[in-house]
Amino acid sequence: MSNVESLPLAVTGAGAAPCCPPLTERPYSAEEAETAARMFKALGDPVRLRLFSLVASHERGEACVCDISDVGVSQPTVSHHLKKLREAGLLTSERRGTWVYYRVAPSVLTGMGRLLGSR
Amino acid sequence: MSNVESLPLAVTGAGAAPCCPPLTERPYSAEEAETAARMFKALGDPVRLRLFSLVASHERGEACVCDISDVGVSQPTVSHHLKKLREAGLLTSERRGTWVYYRVAPSVLTGMGRLLGSR
Repeated sequence: MSNVESLPLAVTGAGAAPCCPPLTERPYSAEEAETAARMFKALGDPVRLRLFSLVASHERGEACVCDISDVGVSQPTVSHHLKKLREAGLLTSERRGTWVYYRVAPSVLTGMGRLLGSR
Repeated sequence: MSNVESLPLAVTGAGAAPCCPPLTERPYSAEEAETAARMFKALGDPVRLRLFSLVASHERGEACVCDISDVGVSQPTVSHHLKKLREAGLLTSERRGTWVYYRVAPSVLTGMGRLLGSR
């Protein structure tokens, strides 16, 4: 199908999450803030947040564009946002057959929880 | 001093944090995503994230503009970003004498931790 994203296999996210100490520990340096803000920014869009939640809560922890409907935007827009989430290190992707499957990057929830001082 | 923000006393943040179930629990509704994304977006700017971290890690858990230097932006810009964080429900503010003091809204870290499935 022509509208499937052309992504490399098993791209691992840049892993922004584990970069930084808890936000309550000490003031962030400019570099730490730059890295962590990239991740928060990626989740700072309602459509992207819905997509992230959809992938994170989907059966087997993964979803492809074919599983996604009902978020009120077109499939190319869905693909665009999934790519942004991947680029921010929040999702990883893997092509299997026709479709690219997305899952939450392993360290993301732990890493973001750590930033918030909860781990 | 003329450049102190004119804010109402003890403004309580809108409290975006406790709105939503863990991101991994089920796909967010449009309304939940709208609310939670507002909070992530507020932290999605490196300067705001440094300021949030500075307030969150400051002595007694609070800081005023007078405590903030060395983030590479002017004091009016600092005030602007602190206001954004307050509007997103992440910080509360209270005027005491000359200065407005900011602290992390009580439920924010717990609430955000919950979104990430860690509480």
